[in-house]
Amino acid sequence: MILRDPVHGLVAFEGISERVIGGLLRAREVQRMRRISQLGMTSLVFPGAEHSRFAHALGAAHVMVRLLARIQQIQFDLPDTLRLDEQSRADALGAAFLHDLGHGPFSHLFEEVLPDARRHEDWTLQIINEPSTDVHKVLNNIAAGSTDRVTKLLSRQYPVAYLSRAIDGSLDVDRCDYLLRDSHMTGVSYGVYDLDWLLQALAFGLVSLDEGKQEWVLAIEGRKGLPPVESFFLARQFMYQQVYHHKATRAAEALIRGIFIRVAELVRDGALPQPIPHAIRAAALGEPAPVFDYLELDDVRLMNCFLSWETCKDKVLSDLSRSLINRHLPKTIPLPSGPHAEAKRREALCRAHEVALKHGLRPDIHIRLDTPVEEPYTEVADRSAEGLWVLLSHQTPRRLGEVSFLLGELRNKRIERPRLIFPESIRDEVILAIGGLLE
Amino acid sequence: MILRDPVHGLVAFEGISERVIGGLLRAREVQRMRRISQLGMTSLVFPGAEHSRFAHALGAAHVMVRLLARIQQIQFDLPDTLRLDEQSRADALGAAFLHDLGHGPFSHLFEEVLPDARRHEDWTLQIINEPSTDVHKVLNNIAAGSTDRVTKLLSRQYPVAYLSRAIDGSLDVDRCDYLLRDSHMTGVSYGVYDLDWLLQALAFGLVSLDEGKQEWVLAIEGRKGLPPVESFFLARQFMYQQVYHHKATRAAEALIRGIFIRVAELVRDGALPQPIPHAIRAAALGEPAPVFDYLELDDVRLMNCFLSWETCKDKVLSDLSRSLINRHLPKTIPLPSGPHAEAKRREALCRAHEVALKHGLRPDIHIRLDTPVEEPYTEVADRSAEGLWVLLSHQTPRRLGEVSFLLGELRNKRIERPRLIFPESIRDEVILAIGGLLE
Amino acid sequence: MILRDPVHGLVAFEGISERVIGGLLRAREVQRMRRISQLGMTSLVFPGAEHSRFAHALGAAHVMVRLLARIQQIQFDLPDTLRLDEQSRADALGAAFLHDLGHGPFSHLFEEVLPDARRHEDWTLQIINEPSTDVHKVLNNIAAGSTDRVTKLLSRQYPVAYLSRAIDGSLDVDRCDYLLRDSHMTGVSYGVYDLDWLLQALAFGLVSLDEGKQEWVLAIEGRKGLPPVESFFLARQFMYQQVYHHKATRAAEALIRGIFIRVAELVRDGALPQPIPHAIRAAALGEPAPVFDYLELDDVRLMNCFLSWETCKDKVLSDLSRSLINRHLPKTIPLPSGPHAEAKRREALCRAHEVALKHGLRPDIHIRLDTPVEEPYTEVADRSAEGLWVLLSHQTPRRLGEVSFLLGELRNKRIERPRLIFPESIRDEVILAIGGLLE
Amino acid sequence: MILRDPVHGLVAFEGISERVIGGLLRAREVQRMRRISQLGMTSLVFPGAEHSRFAHALGAAHVMVRLLARIQQIQFDLPDTLRLDEQSRADALGAAFLHDLGHGPFSHLFEEVLPDARRHEDWTLQIINEPSTDVHKVLNNIAAGSTDRVTKLLSRQYPVAYLSRAIDGSLDVDRCDYLLRDSHMTGVSYGVYDLDWLLQALAFGLVSLDEGKQEWVLAIEGRKGLPPVESFFLARQFMYQQVYHHKATRAAEALIRGIFIRVAELVRDGALPQPIPHAIRAAALGEPAPVFDYLELDDVRLMNCFLSWETCKDKVLSDLSRSLINRHLPKTIPLPSGPHAEAKRREALCRAHEVALKHGLRPDIHIRLDTPVEEPYTEVADRSAEGLWVLLSHQTPRRLGEVSFLLGELRNKRIERPRLIFPESIRDEVILAIGGLLE
Repeated sequence: MILRDPVHGLVAFEGISERVIGGLLRAREVQRMRRISQLGMTSLVFPGAEHSRFAHALGAAHVMVRLLARIQQIQFDLPDTLRLDEQSRADALGAAFLHDLGHGPFSHLFEEVLPDARRHEDWTLQIINEPSTDVHKVLNNIAAGSTDRVTKLLSRQYPVAYLSRAIDGSLDVDRCDYLLRDSHMTGVSYGVYDLDWLLQALAFGLVSLDEGKQEWVLAIEGRKGLPPVESFFLARQFMYQQVYHHKATRAAEALIRGIFIRVAELVRDGALPQPIPHAIRAAALGEPAPVFDYLELDDVRLMNCFLSWETCKDKVLSDLSRSLINRHLPKTIPLPSGPHAEAKRREALCRAHEVALKHGLRPDIHIRLDTPVEEPYTEVADRSAEGLWVLLSHQTPRRLGEVSFLLGELRNKRIERPRLIFPESIRDEVILAIGGLLE
Repeated sequence: MILRDPVHGLVAFEGISERVIGGLLRAREVQRMRRISQLGMTSLVFPGAEHSRFAHALGAAHVMVRLLARIQQIQFDLPDTLRLDEQSRADALGAAFLHDLGHGPFSHLFEEVLPDARRHEDWTLQIINEPSTDVHKVLNNIAAGSTDRVTKLLSRQYPVAYLSRAIDGSLDVDRCDYLLRDSHMTGVSYGVYDLDWLLQALAFGLVSLDEGKQEWVLAIEGRKGLPPVESFFLARQFMYQQVYHHKATRAAEALIRGIFIRVAELVRDGALPQPIPHAIRAAALGEPAPVFDYLELDDVRLMNCFLSWETCKDKVLSDLSRSLINRHLPKTIPLPSGPHAEAKRREALCRAHEVALKHGLRPDIHIRLDTPVEEPYTEVADRSAEGLWVLLSHQTPRRLGEVSFLLGELRNKRIERPRLIFPESIRDEVILAIGGLLE
Repeated sequence: MILRDPVHGLVAFEGISERVIGGLLRAREVQRMRRISQLGMTSLVFPGAEHSRFAHALGAAHVMVRLLARIQQIQFDLPDTLRLDEQSRADALGAAFLHDLGHGPFSHLFEEVLPDARRHEDWTLQIINEPSTDVHKVLNNIAAGSTDRVTKLLSRQYPVAYLSRAIDGSLDVDRCDYLLRDSHMTGVSYGVYDLDWLLQALAFGLVSLDEGKQEWVLAIEGRKGLPPVESFFLARQFMYQQVYHHKATRAAEALIRGIFIRVAELVRDGALPQPIPHAIRAAALGEPAPVFDYLELDDVRLMNCFLSWETCKDKVLSDLSRSLINRHLPKTIPLPSGPHAEAKRREALCRAHEVALKHGLRPDIHIRLDTPVEEPYTEVADRSAEGLWVLLSHQTPRRLGEVSFLLGELRNKRIERPRLIFPESIRDEVILAIGGLLE
Repeated sequence: MILRDPVHGLVAFEGISERVIGGLLRAREVQRMRRISQLGMTSLVFPGAEHSRFAHALGAAHVMVRLLARIQQIQFDLPDTLRLDEQSRADALGAAFLHDLGHGPFSHLFEEVLPDARRHEDWTLQIINEPSTDVHKVLNNIAAGSTDRVTKLLSRQYPVAYLSRAIDGSLDVDRCDYLLRDSHMTGVSYGVYDLDWLLQALAFGLVSLDEGKQEWVLAIEGRKGLPPVESFFLARQFMYQQVYHHKATRAAEALIRGIFIRVAELVRDGALPQPIPHAIRAAALGEPAPVFDYLELDDVRLMNCFLSWETCKDKVLSDLSRSLINRHLPKTIPLPSGPHAEAKRREALCRAHEVALKHGLRPDIHIRLDTPVEEPYTEVADRSAEGLWVLLSHQTPRRLGEVSFLLGELRNKRIERPRLIFPESIRDEVILAIGGLLE
């Protein structure tokens, strides 16, 4: 199977292990990912960012194909148990392709705005292990025990530990694809790093861990690998700064959060807006949703609700829905950051609440103090196999942050970007009210 | 207003005339274009092709910004009445941005599968001229008479004729954007041509037309302009060959055609599937739809129907809907082309019908003889201002096809690509039945 | 060995066969290619086109690496004798890297302006087979008999015939690299085609040839391979039209031709300009040059001559050299093409000669009727293994021009672009003299 | 005049002020830049990096065209004396195009390896002001006083101070072009930043300086400008790390340094190698070179010397020349950095000297302790108009390093990369001798 992709160009799944991808493509739960946008509300700000989880899943599987090819070039030193075979290759491809299967509508947004939502990673595992799903059947048709092994891979219990980390780690196929894809689709060039060179810079190293243990890790080779891995982390940081934490995206998310708060109230009050998907109703009541109800939820279903709720009787809900559909987004203003400005931020929030109340708006729905946090490069202090190791000739492997000047400077730093979000209609009054607190 | 775009990079609407774009962005009918995919079912084949009409509309407006900038560099010879001013610039930008406003769900697909559907161009004009739409209000707020002028621009009655042709002509901002965008998003590099150089190669020329008339046309300058304009038409041809007429895309469209045939029958029989948008119901009954009913239709609404119809009582409809949602597409086989093979094609269709009937399938719904036609470069024979003229030093302007070797060879040629479309379940039998007819 | 390349990105020579490249890199004759510009005088017109034969040679070797990888995926049907092994892989890589070794200064230009120059292909073979060259020693050190095998590969006598054609054929690694490279460096986007997809579209087919023979050829697979191969030939045509036959490039070449005519006269008259490389002196006298004298010639040596000749006593030579160095290029004017305009062209040349004479210029040196010819796609009529074959399911292999609509239309067509080249100083008079002949 | 460029695409010089570029293109000293490679020996390591100063000069002029266009959009607040007019535009374009006119062979390399070489900036000014150069004549033909004004622009005495800084400052057209160009040509993607967005982020701000003065500076607008300017400095840092300070490039430079040391000795001893350009001879004797002797030096002349010196009688010189031509580069080994390792580095150098002496090599010529230094982002502490300022809404302009988290972390940091360079022939012995000192 050969596909074309705007990010990776030609994407081929042609070997024996790669058949798992062709099989999974016929699974209903996989096709559902076409109806989950990768970046939620981001296309309201970056109009090109209309790509789906499905495109990302294929991209992640493609990066895995390339990673497996690289591993086969460099695995000569590994003990047999850690070398790739057709089964572990198929497991890795399946896991890469399915890693985001459990996302709800608008991806992360869904679990972020619902207070007690189950994590999408848990849904992913449940869908894979539910015997009646297409995904479950396809996996086990391909090879007995596939669902178990893919589950282990996705939950860090797989015997080949470096493969688990290649799907969910500091430098994994998920990040490798989404940075390139989101960057490409938003038109923000900063998310681009050199994937070819990054793969070429991988090598296996035997690392001495705590308690006298040793483990083979997929590491960065010598000094030639520093620039690609440095630019990988910088690309990630730029994407957070520019896209994921963009003020207008966060404003749109605040709008959806308001919608969910109100829908939950209406559900609990028995005044259900129509239509109302089962899973939303269950979430509002704090009840667990059966997996098939959850799978029925996607962007189409939810957006169809917003379109219908625009004309519902509840004015709060209809106003919020209309704002979202017509892209009349709330406004934002940056607040001073840092612990010393904590009191200022609380005061700003308090004054904005007062303005909202004065105008008959509900502070809990219409006002939000939003504080996204960025961590450009985190590095654990202990000697575990987690994180990234660098191999230097004639030296023992060292932590990336010790070898890289740039990442050493950024290691474990945190950037907070607090901002106040409020309706456009009360913009002038809010600014007036909090003006003195802005610095 | 500055935006980022995966195709054009930085997209800026910053001058006075450009304000029309910012104003129109707040119009509900414009935001609706976010919910109309540019390429209909194509993303089932090219997973990256998930972009919307909205992104294309912005792109077309951006190309218009660039075209207007080029026109201002080269308009010194034009009479005053043909020179740009703020008003004609705003009209051109508005028209470029709104030219696809009237598309139904999945763009062209909607009018292609509905037998008597109104053309999207007509809906566009009606939406602009309907006093209660946001678009109408915004346009006339910006400048009195805007809706009239934009309507004239879009319907070839604008006094500055070259602007009308720049929105709908052989080489217009619509094609300029969609070739680049569709090519980029599908990952098919063949649709790329050199927009920078194409714009740079434009110049005004005074052409002698039939009946002794003369007209200023936006023409291609000398020999330096041939390569970009040749590659523009070749890019277009490649996109038809590779993407727009791709066999699997056509197969998906045949599936939707089948769905609409069945829905129309059910509506006429009074057995309405639920939900059923007003405009679909009206179309099924051959009744005209009010503009607001039409505007309510979009990909979300229609895809929501497909998802619901999957569980409706009518087996034909539920099966078709399920196939579409799970991407179980019909199969295709190419048939011999040319007039001499007409009888073979009819015979093949006939035999496929028989196979379908044998399996309890409806030939009119499940079998289709599809014959997309490609015309790489058409050129009118008369001396009208239409089409493309080339300016050569020391010579009178000549038709592009006379000057370009490549386009001269392709001029007014037609390529037919007939193929038979049928369900996967009867694939082997159909191939067996028509085998002898394939060459 | 891993390199970076502006055209192909990461270029890796990492396997066993690839060691031949690392070895050859230390050969003096290979390093000499750094001092031969790939496109001769073209950088006077396209300032970015400053790349050397060396960069192209690496690029061709890289395309060979990719081609060999593709062949290994598709060779399962081939008889053992035609399958790749380490030796044939190394031969192919060596031949690809060395195929242009024998180029003289400014590449093609050198043999084009010297009337009886030996072809660079012959020099290549001689350099490989001369026992005292580094290249010869390196090749035979790597494996006994390498020079013989590489020679056979380069001269179409290698037992694996498809490999010979992959180095010098309709679609070979030479063209594959130079189209992309020259296009990239000149900034002319039209030379770009889709190398990834082209490689993916290759497959082996057994073709029935004349006289009942059969041969395995590297062919184009089915209909999916048409677009990349069509755009490959179109890219080539665009590059000829835009770059290789650009009027100013041809004018610069005419200048160098004039320099060589004059230097040859001076040599024969015993009035040698200083410095004068041995090989130039020999060429002027029609004597054969020893290979080491030939290898001493490169762009540096020749450009150093031009710089020195600028101040030599002979006014014709010094004027021509100065014009070249200061880029005061001759002017050109297109003449009508086609056999019917033969008389007009002769008349134009004749009149230009008269103008030159009147101004004390030498017609044979300063005036040139230049007629580059383009052949977008040539296809032999017989059933030989040469040229390109297309594999279609359920059909026997067919010639590319029969299957491709575009290439069928262009097959064996010829485009002539006659133009007159003359000094800037007599431009107005020449144009006046030939004005009436231009149409 | 319209050109194509591999880096910027279409490059147009079309307005009135732009005529200065067309005029200067006919100047001999400008054409000489075609014979000065931009990156010296770098193409020995990155084969694509064969571009000339000429291509960079055009690129810098093109960036100036774009910068001037941006300035005209944002200059409304400036006092009349600081606004652009045709004259200041032409001055800026001329200065951008000529800023590197005075480079010697292989660019920076020439002045770095000659101990008392005059700076290329001084040569640039001298060439512009020498009445007999073409450049001087062309400039003053275009407008009286042009040479004076361009000189002032290039030496920071121009009345429009922000234009001087745009040619030579933290963020100038020189850096803007060379980062993109060198990155593109080497194939190192890390040097790419977003020029479009960077230009769009510029705005004028009135900054309060020391001593109560105020000055209009070209500043970075608000928070939207941070990512492009951050990535500009990161791109620069990556290029130093990856390309400019690459170990093999530095090794080739050490070889040339050795050649010059030996040539100087031979000149002083009266044993002149042949040929020997006047300017090299003068440099060896510590005598000033006349400008026309200096202009005669270029890569062609110098490379021609290396080729000839390969067969000269002096064995030291011929060996060094041969190594360079055949790319037999010295080897390198990284040494520990930091002040605490100073003694180790001195000891390593000392031991390498001993190994060299033992093998009859000259330590001063064959051994080198090389310590390139990188400063990712420097920021002056005082309130001068130099450096970069950021404009924030409702706040006074602040230094870039105060606003940007990333640049704040890197501000005024220094990275040293000490390494030892020595001949390949003594590699093993050197490594053995210094082994214990490497960490």
